[in-house]
Amino acid sequence: MNDRYEEGELDTGLLSPVRAGTPAETATGDRAWLQAMLDAEAGLARAQARLGTLPAKAAEVISERARAELLDVRALSLAARETANPVVGLVRAFTALVAEADPGAAEYVHRGSTSQDVLDTGSMLVAARTLRLLTADLRRTADALGWLAVEHRDTPAVARTLALHAVPSTFGLKAAGWRHLVLDSVERLERLLDGGLPVSLGGAAGTLAGYLEYAGVDAEGGAPVDPGDYLDRLSAAYAAETGLAVPVLPWHALRTPVADLAAALAHTAGALGKFAADVQVLARTEIAEVAEPAPAGRGVSSAMPHKRNPVLSTMIRSAALQVPLLAAGLTQCLVSEDERSAGVWHAEWQLLRDCLRLAGGAAHTAVELAENLVVDPARMRSNLDLTGSQVVSERIVAVLAPRLGKAVARTLLTDAATAADREAVSLGEILAALPQLQGVLGQDELADLLDPARYTGAAGALVDRAVLRAPGERSGE
Amino acid sequence: MNDRYEEGELDTGLLSPVRAGTPAETATGDRAWLQAMLDAEAGLARAQARLGTLPAKAAEVISERARAELLDVRALSLAARETANPVVGLVRAFTALVAEADPGAAEYVHRGSTSQDVLDTGSMLVAARTLRLLTADLRRTADALGWLAVEHRDTPAVARTLALHAVPSTFGLKAAGWRHLVLDSVERLERLLDGGLPVSLGGAAGTLAGYLEYAGVDAEGGAPVDPGDYLDRLSAAYAAETGLAVPVLPWHALRTPVADLAAALAHTAGALGKFAADVQVLARTEIAEVAEPAPAGRGVSSAMPHKRNPVLSTMIRSAALQVPLLAAGLTQCLVSEDERSAGVWHAEWQLLRDCLRLAGGAAHTAVELAENLVVDPARMRSNLDLTGSQVVSERIVAVLAPRLGKAVARTLLTDAATAADREAVSLGEILAALPQLQGVLGQDELADLLDPARYTGAAGALVDRAVLRAPGERSGE
Amino acid sequence: MNDRYEEGELDTGLLSPVRAGTPAETATGDRAWLQAMLDAEAGLARAQARLGTLPAKAAEVISERARAELLDVRALSLAARETANPVVGLVRAFTALVAEADPGAAEYVHRGSTSQDVLDTGSMLVAARTLRLLTADLRRTADALGWLAVEHRDTPAVARTLALHAVPSTFGLKAAGWRHLVLDSVERLERLLDGGLPVSLGGAAGTLAGYLEYAGVDAEGGAPVDPGDYLDRLSAAYAAETGLAVPVLPWHALRTPVADLAAALAHTAGALGKFAADVQVLARTEIAEVAEPAPAGRGVSSAMPHKRNPVLSTMIRSAALQVPLLAAGLTQCLVSEDERSAGVWHAEWQLLRDCLRLAGGAAHTAVELAENLVVDPARMRSNLDLTGSQVVSERIVAVLAPRLGKAVARTLLTDAATAADREAVSLGEILAALPQLQGVLGQDELADLLDPARYTGAAGALVDRAVLRAPGERSGE
Amino acid sequence: MNDRYEEGELDTGLLSPVRAGTPAETATGDRAWLQAMLDAEAGLARAQARLGTLPAKAAEVISERARAELLDVRALSLAARETANPVVGLVRAFTALVAEADPGAAEYVHRGSTSQDVLDTGSMLVAARTLRLLTADLRRTADALGWLAVEHRDTPAVARTLALHAVPSTFGLKAAGWRHLVLDSVERLERLLDGGLPVSLGGAAGTLAGYLEYAGVDAEGGAPVDPGDYLDRLSAAYAAETGLAVPVLPWHALRTPVADLAAALAHTAGALGKFAADVQVLARTEIAEVAEPAPAGRGVSSAMPHKRNPVLSTMIRSAALQVPLLAAGLTQCLVSEDERSAGVWHAEWQLLRDCLRLAGGAAHTAVELAENLVVDPARMRSNLDLTGSQVVSERIVAVLAPRLGKAVARTLLTDAATAADREAVSLGEILAALPQLQGVLGQDELADLLDPARYTGAAGALVDRAVLRAPGERSGE
Repeated sequence: MNDRYEEGELDTGLLSPVRAGTPAETATGDRAWLQAMLDAEAGLARAQARLGTLPAKAAEVISERARAELLDVRALSLAARETANPVVGLVRAFTALVAEADPGAAEYVHRGSTSQDVLDTGSMLVAARTLRLLTADLRRTADALGWLAVEHRDTPAVARTLALHAVPSTFGLKAAGWRHLVLDSVERLERLLDGGLPVSLGGAAGTLAGYLEYAGVDAEGGAPVDPGDYLDRLSAAYAAETGLAVPVLPWHALRTPVADLAAALAHTAGALGKFAADVQVLARTEIAEVAEPAPAGRGVSSAMPHKRNPVLSTMIRSAALQVPLLAAGLTQCLVSEDERSAGVWHAEWQLLRDCLRLAGGAAHTAVELAENLVVDPARMRSNLDLTGSQVVSERIVAVLAPRLGKAVARTLLTDAATAADREAVSLGEILAALPQLQGVLGQDELADLLDPARYTGAAGALVDRAVLRAPGERSGE
Repeated sequence: MNDRYEEGELDTGLLSPVRAGTPAETATGDRAWLQAMLDAEAGLARAQARLGTLPAKAAEVISERARAELLDVRALSLAARETANPVVGLVRAFTALVAEADPGAAEYVHRGSTSQDVLDTGSMLVAARTLRLLTADLRRTADALGWLAVEHRDTPAVARTLALHAVPSTFGLKAAGWRHLVLDSVERLERLLDGGLPVSLGGAAGTLAGYLEYAGVDAEGGAPVDPGDYLDRLSAAYAAETGLAVPVLPWHALRTPVADLAAALAHTAGALGKFAADVQVLARTEIAEVAEPAPAGRGVSSAMPHKRNPVLSTMIRSAALQVPLLAAGLTQCLVSEDERSAGVWHAEWQLLRDCLRLAGGAAHTAVELAENLVVDPARMRSNLDLTGSQVVSERIVAVLAPRLGKAVARTLLTDAATAADREAVSLGEILAALPQLQGVLGQDELADLLDPARYTGAAGALVDRAVLRAPGERSGE
Repeated sequence: MNDRYEEGELDTGLLSPVRAGTPAETATGDRAWLQAMLDAEAGLARAQARLGTLPAKAAEVISERARAELLDVRALSLAARETANPVVGLVRAFTALVAEADPGAAEYVHRGSTSQDVLDTGSMLVAARTLRLLTADLRRTADALGWLAVEHRDTPAVARTLALHAVPSTFGLKAAGWRHLVLDSVERLERLLDGGLPVSLGGAAGTLAGYLEYAGVDAEGGAPVDPGDYLDRLSAAYAAETGLAVPVLPWHALRTPVADLAAALAHTAGALGKFAADVQVLARTEIAEVAEPAPAGRGVSSAMPHKRNPVLSTMIRSAALQVPLLAAGLTQCLVSEDERSAGVWHAEWQLLRDCLRLAGGAAHTAVELAENLVVDPARMRSNLDLTGSQVVSERIVAVLAPRLGKAVARTLLTDAATAADREAVSLGEILAALPQLQGVLGQDELADLLDPARYTGAAGALVDRAVLRAPGERSGE
Repeated sequence: MNDRYEEGELDTGLLSPVRAGTPAETATGDRAWLQAMLDAEAGLARAQARLGTLPAKAAEVISERARAELLDVRALSLAARETANPVVGLVRAFTALVAEADPGAAEYVHRGSTSQDVLDTGSMLVAARTLRLLTADLRRTADALGWLAVEHRDTPAVARTLALHAVPSTFGLKAAGWRHLVLDSVERLERLLDGGLPVSLGGAAGTLAGYLEYAGVDAEGGAPVDPGDYLDRLSAAYAAETGLAVPVLPWHALRTPVADLAAALAHTAGALGKFAADVQVLARTEIAEVAEPAPAGRGVSSAMPHKRNPVLSTMIRSAALQVPLLAAGLTQCLVSEDERSAGVWHAEWQLLRDCLRLAGGAAHTAVELAENLVVDPARMRSNLDLTGSQVVSERIVAVLAPRLGKAVARTLLTDAATAADREAVSLGEILAALPQLQGVLGQDELADLLDPARYTGAAGALVDRAVLRAPGERSGE
């Protein structure tokens, strides 16, 4: 058995095709997380250097050496068992790495800091980087869906409720709805990118005492350090160095940023899952109103040569089933005892990674699905006609209500629909023959009322309004 | 067996003390939900009347009769099994109720509408009403915690990480953290109250066709109805009548409002759960830094006369364990097929109710806990001294690092702490005797360094900053 | 507003039609839970009386007064907030009730006991009673599905995978699968009924010290009490009085019985959910292979007179979406600190109730669905023919593989299926015209191969084997 | 950036120390899963060869080449995106691998099979292999806990309820409870190993039609194949070749085996989580009744040299928080439409892997914790005395009840306990001075009653009974 077994082939995506090979997978891998933690260490050193409490040269060396490829990730993973987190081993290995270049600089690695500051800041960096990929993919998806909505603004299609044909609608309205939901996700994710992902800066237990103590020790000129002032300046400098936000309080045990990520990622997976679920209904053999793009080799079955499986929606749906549960785990981690929990914090890491990469993989998959969805308006029309105009029964009640009374009209239509089913004829034939309607509803008016394509309500107007919504603009405003 | 068995005693809160008798329980009960659905029907009638497509008199009668106490809730619950939702039966019963007063008005009940418009609008009304109660309780909780933070800004207390004494901090900082988390919840809930809870207005399947058809039939003057214009005006009128927001699209199958509620309520339960979890640690017999308020009879054990159980935090924690899971169920409901799912929509109702009333009950309970928490600064101080100054070992490393090198200083303190434990003496005694420190650390400096109360870092400054945060102001801005 | 508002109309099932009015709802209501806790108190008194450590007369009076209708449930619910559980108030009220009849007997109420013994024993009684209702409904469901399987053993129907037509199968095999899954649930629930639901008997913190102390005080003859002996005898007597099992250890903080209930109920909801999900697919307007039973008024839409919504499967599915999450909450409660958790235990109660009543309601609903499902074999056949024999492409590859090689055969069929789609003709026409198949596949053999009804594999034999499985017999044995 | 980035460092355990480097991690890695799927392919070929429907030589070559190290795992992961599962690509690559050795044998790879048969059988093999590791670790844990229970059968320790001292107990009883819960897990896992993990054998959609067709084509002598007979024999042979069980029905869409795994693994994580949660309470600085083993370097903090963090219990708890949620996802996958779902099946794979490896990692970690837990009986005793005998207040009520009446006795003790707290004296001092007790309770009797160590009830007897339970023996029998 070769060596890669142990380190290299534990999880290459074999059981999670939705994210295998997608940008989000790489952006959330161990190497990326390690790099982000090194970026946190380096950013912290530079921030301290900005404030004159760490030598500029040391910060420079630390920054130069902060490269994940110089460290052995698997060794750090294994070492993490001794301390229940990977940062203790990382600091040790990274200190040695810096010491190789400059022993003096090595003294300043992780100066005043604690594992959680580094891991949490690293997580926020990973989250920010993945969210940028994710929102870009969601915007592309929304764009494609927007085009579908516009193109099919007036393409009649049946609306289905409780699995049955309900009333006429348009395919454009359906696509506009998918887009709307995707933009809701974009809005939630971008709200996080815009100030919701803070640096972690608390020191051993949230008082920053270590940072302050070293600042006092190291300060140029030896001037006494004012805690409030130093706190403000160090936070600002650290945020500037990392591109993250400044928190009001250290959030070691106040986990709103993680809960917010969980909520936004669960929304994203759910929004894409709605799109996928609808595509699967419409792609059913008996319905066949849409089909997934089928480049050579795509959707092949190992047993059945005739099949072109809807694999993109399948993968998206697999992510949509998982993320809300993983996100619930993150939300539960709000309940975390003391200044740092013994286990609750530790439960977050893999859950967060999985939420990010599954949502990210699903979004990447959705781009391809939205941009290449094959739509069959003719089939939509023939499906719309399947019930022989029963889908407009609501309309006929509305027209008859003032003429016959609502209750009478409703009963009449219910009976007519039942009769149409029983006799396997169209609703129109039944209605045309009803004595109660003689003189109440003329043949021309009836014919007009029975055309499903003329009863799509405000579908077109709704599409017009929905496509005006720019990404990032709040629904309802 | 008396009749109340069937109808009345299915769930009076016996298994859920956290919400029994709280305002949120009443606000989310069946009667309240029924009233909200009637309010939706009445609001819709008035909105149509505003637009001239329903007689003003009919809207008036409909509004007058829209009183839950006139209907038999249990009968509606039982009837709901025939249609899988309670609205069909409600419309039938309410129509009869209106007809008693004015048969003509009865024709206009539920005009053009569909079950989901009524149930979803009703749910948003219930949510809005409950959220107002909830945020008021959270603000009171935050106020009380703010006072604790200010009062104990400089009360030394040990910070604990991974269950062990870590470094000194203050009780004020802990209270400020609790407050901060509660304000994060307030912010998320108020964001929803401010435009995030829309009316539901789609008609049978989201096209508003029924509304439009009746508008055409009923319009004063018989002028043709422009779908877009009518849609805009009807939405605005309905929102105005109910106090809810205007959605861009009908959201029958686009469930962002429900997912957002789920996320905010899960945050709330989690935030309060953090407060409760900390109180429970601090209330432990061996720690005893805080105690719950104990009015007569409170916290009594059925077996042990000496106990005063921390019942408020216990109830809060019970809610915090449940809500995130219920909320995950709501988030999963984003994945909903077609224009209305056959089951996914139906799974939301009870989950939403439970999220609202558990979070609401927890908030109500938290007010009492926060306003009456008994704090023991003397015990905090004596606990802080328990480890014989080991809680300042980080500080001494910081001071010695530039004198001895960081690695040497760290090893020296690790060994000294081990020796202190082994010999059951204070860290100071060990350090004072160490030959390596002769001439490096004077006795006065050492005594100073060893005082835990002098190593609280920026705790005070952090409290100052945190209490400046007004409710509703975003963390990090 | 009338008084019933507060007490009586908090939850009559309005938001949960799946269980409104079902036997499981009543069996898990507050009144039923209260009765079960009173049964626990009475059983405990009788058990102690059996052992001579409580006067027989007192046990008799206690048993006679243990009637829920004599107590005010809502008052107990409200009182529970003082102690975070309903038992302290219950003991007080029940003691008074017994004292009315016999002040001496009142001394023996709750003798040596603790809240958790009473609440947990009560919960197990509620669970046992509800599980009996539940398994009876599941067995009826399985019976009905068994008849469907036998009746349609050879009714050809298409099997669908990834939303598309895959290969021929039979409707009998599908029904047999539904039955099999339901029997898996029965097996898991009956395993619990057969010894998995124990009495709770630990006293204040699991040592039975209170019981032993009172036994010493009260023992006839005043003989000293041997702890082990008394423990064994009291447990056996309590189990005999309640019909529950004897636990090895008090399980106040060892929550396997609750976790097992959670797992079995989640399986039940999931198994029924599979049935419901399939019914919904098959009931779709375009597919129409089955229909739900439609007695008058059932499935009515508030907007659309022509619809007969599949309401039974809709309600079942709504339960299937909720129960696994609630069950996960119960499983998480295994992680419970100390001899009794401050909050974790308390989180279980409502979750357990909801799991029981949702699964119970779903099972009750499934009986009606299974016993009255309308099956349309003709439509199954016409759907099976929809793809023009493409559903047998796998078979033709198998036949051609030894003649042409597997890879060549597979490519040939893939190309043929693509051509058939493109030219909108049947697969048979394409194949008949292929030069590569001249002399390889005769026209008669081809015609034979192309008949979907002749390629149902072992479907019939599988039905035969599956229906032999008796309820309670383990799958795989 | 080197190449290993893409393939090798996506997940080496950096964010999941609980399983990094444990046997369960390797046993559930991509390489192991790939090997298991190859074992499934090879086992199927040998099974068919046993029945004479596949050449023995081909089965031999197929078995020889079924080695994961000959395939590129990452390439298969990436290829899986084209088909939404890894088997299509695996069959292609494996066929080529066999063809290199014997082109004729390659014709028989995956004969009559389908992706799901291979993936599901592979998953059951991975599960069986991991469960064997897991149960071995749980048995070691239970053994060590059993020794603790026996050694500390009579070590007095306080029992805590709702975070407060309740009554005296023993540490042995606590350890016996931990062991009991672990054995409950063993029992549930071994039930699965004993017949609960079946082969998957259904062919394209559960009818075995492909297997039967090839059997007819390939059968020696060309005798016609009886479907039922062949089904029985092929299932038996496949089970024999793989060591898995024979299912009654193909379970492509009947997911009881997966739901059962989920339930048993969630129980395992929860049971270990209970152990860890208790260790963390007892290890708190103020309580200090137990300590985790601390070999050099273990438990080191990156900031605080004096700390020895309880890292083993921390890691276990991190798993206990995650597994029940992941398991809920698996249970939800019971609701799976059609003969194979488009997404629900696909959601299972990673969830199952994570449940297996987190539970497995936690069990491995628990062995070390249980075998090396440091127990401090002296500290237990001094903590037991902390409340000045208030922990025996229940006992004194019991003794006084027949002398004073229960209500009077109870009130008297409640008041005495309050007075003791207020005056900071022992309960004994208060009671000795009470006029009501003069002549009721002698000084000697009082002294005796006040000794906590004499009020441990049946703790010792319970330990005796609990340790008699052998692993695998059902609780309650």
